[in-house]
Amino acid sequence: MKVGLGDVKNEMRAVWFTNGEVRMIDQRRLPSDVSIVSFKDHNAVAMAIKNMTVRGAPSIGAAAAYGMCLAALNGRNLKEAATVIKAARPTANDLFYAVDHMVSELKKGVAPQKAADDYAQMIVDKCISMGEHGAPLINDGDVIMTHCNAGALATVDVGTALAPIRKAHAEGKGKKIFVFVSETRPRLQGMQLTAWELLQEGIPHSVITDNASGHFMKMGVDMVIVGADRIAANGDFANKIGTYGKAVLAKELNIPFYVAAPVSTFDFETEDGDKIVIEHRPEEEVTMIGSMRIAPVGSHAVNPSFDVTPARYVTGFITEKGILRPDEISRMR
Amino acid sequence: MKVGLGDVKNEMRAVWFTNGEVRMIDQRRLPSDVSIVSFKDHNAVAMAIKNMTVRGAPSIGAAAAYGMCLAALNGRNLKEAATVIKAARPTANDLFYAVDHMVSELKKGVAPQKAADDYAQMIVDKCISMGEHGAPLINDGDVIMTHCNAGALATVDVGTALAPIRKAHAEGKGKKIFVFVSETRPRLQGMQLTAWELLQEGIPHSVITDNASGHFMKMGVDMVIVGADRIAANGDFANKIGTYGKAVLAKELNIPFYVAAPVSTFDFETEDGDKIVIEHRPEEEVTMIGSMRIAPVGSHAVNPSFDVTPARYVTGFITEKGILRPDEISRMR
Repeated sequence: MKVGLGDVKNEMRAVWFTNGEVRMIDQRRLPSDVSIVSFKDHNAVAMAIKNMTVRGAPSIGAAAAYGMCLAALNGRNLKEAATVIKAARPTANDLFYAVDHMVSELKKGVAPQKAADDYAQMIVDKCISMGEHGAPLINDGDVIMTHCNAGALATVDVGTALAPIRKAHAEGKGKKIFVFVSETRPRLQGMQLTAWELLQEGIPHSVITDNASGHFMKMGVDMVIVGADRIAANGDFANKIGTYGKAVLAKELNIPFYVAAPVSTFDFETEDGDKIVIEHRPEEEVTMIGSMRIAPVGSHAVNPSFDVTPARYVTGFITEKGILRPDEISRMR
Repeated sequence: MKVGLGDVKNEMRAVWFTNGEVRMIDQRRLPSDVSIVSFKDHNAVAMAIKNMTVRGAPSIGAAAAYGMCLAALNGRNLKEAATVIKAARPTANDLFYAVDHMVSELKKGVAPQKAADDYAQMIVDKCISMGEHGAPLINDGDVIMTHCNAGALATVDVGTALAPIRKAHAEGKGKKIFVFVSETRPRLQGMQLTAWELLQEGIPHSVITDNASGHFMKMGVDMVIVGADRIAANGDFANKIGTYGKAVLAKELNIPFYVAAPVSTFDFETEDGDKIVIEHRPEEEVTMIGSMRIAPVGSHAVNPSFDVTPARYVTGFITEKGILRPDEISRMR
């Protein structure tokens, strides 16, 4: 992704390895500061995952792989390092997968940096493929709505939902696009991360409140593209809270609704959306802004992180293998 | 409305007159402080309207009436006072109506405080009627969703959308109700005013992000009640941004969707919703929290205050005259 530092635009990833160090963009300080932090020890990488310096399941996986790379280069006990890194976050499957993958590659004798770089590159290659499959869906002049951050920050580079948008913008075939970025309360990843990425790329956009999604979709949005956290065997999918409302509006207004996600997001063990457990996060994400309470003392909030959108609202899944209608998912099994 | 001050619950209005003073709850300081401010001069009341110490069109109208009352009691030039008070806010029709009504009553020789008290009581009486007509729609155990603040703070007392909720809760016939309060970005009137009112009344509720509306409606909401800023002749209506999205979700999920508003909200000169002009407010309401910028510098926001919901999404309009289906509006003309 492009990242402006002073007057210079640099090509940068969310996490990478150079000169014996793991480096990453400190996502907690965006959008006000672009701060690059570096780590020489796997324990520090585990802490960076824990404290959300790096977020987004694929980026967390890459950070974990690079953490294992550091442990190997530093001659540490790999089993202990694996335990420490896996303990950093409780739910991201990519974290466990990446650590196990690195242990296996290192056992085979693959060089540590090559193994971790290959893992990160695999993620990026899938995103590039999603961009190539998805970009032809976007026409010149299209107005696109997205939600939360399914961008390069979450996936090392390029992104999932943002991959077709980046590709269409970069194609230089006169595709003028405009993106509505819904701010995505409570944590504002739309306003603070997606808008920041689009700004770096020079992609025209406006931030809107989540409340304004319906108004602008009725006024004229040509497509909605979102990411997914988990897709059940029947095509029902979980994604950031607010996705379901956008999907219902899109159906009502006959706006194509696409879900961009790698094939690894499909969970064939989960029959349908009713079986997906929804994580509830602390109410303070809603009732506080930083250290300032904004809700009445005595009122409580409920704060589900995700909602489930039934498959019938999905026009297509944009994957690295191509675009699938919901009724074609079983073919991927 | 009930208002807790220390350990005591007081019965209080948003604005009232006592001991030669206009008093009001400073709505800018809610929910963290209940601060009662008082004014002895109509110029100070005009300033309180301007700086949003009092907000909500009916409450603004009552404040204006009491401002005119002060001007009359203080022996001021009524024409000049009317000009000053009318200039306080540009769009609230109630403001102009209330001032003209007071000038007319004072000319007839009605005592100043009686004229203003009668005006405020007329507003409250309509709200009480809306509550009486609306409460029977609410069943024991119902889960109700509302949006923004269509409560006592906006209407001197009782509220519009909150009137049936208050009445059902107060009936003491075992109607246990639960209210989901969507926070209502960007200005958070749901979280900061509606939740505060429900807390004072002891009505069980949870605050949710606007994004979570769809999730909880799918999980089980029995009815949605919102207010309205203007209702066109065909039943299309304008209300706080985010209302349209809730209406579409309600239709999709077969949840009854009610609009509570006095008959004066119907604008028979406006044929349909397409003719309603939507006010756009400063983008800083979205991109800043207080003095802190939360959006990337260089990204812009668009900030429509209202959206328009077509009449076909409305189950019924709860008015002081009874409940109307959209196809019955023409009868009120």
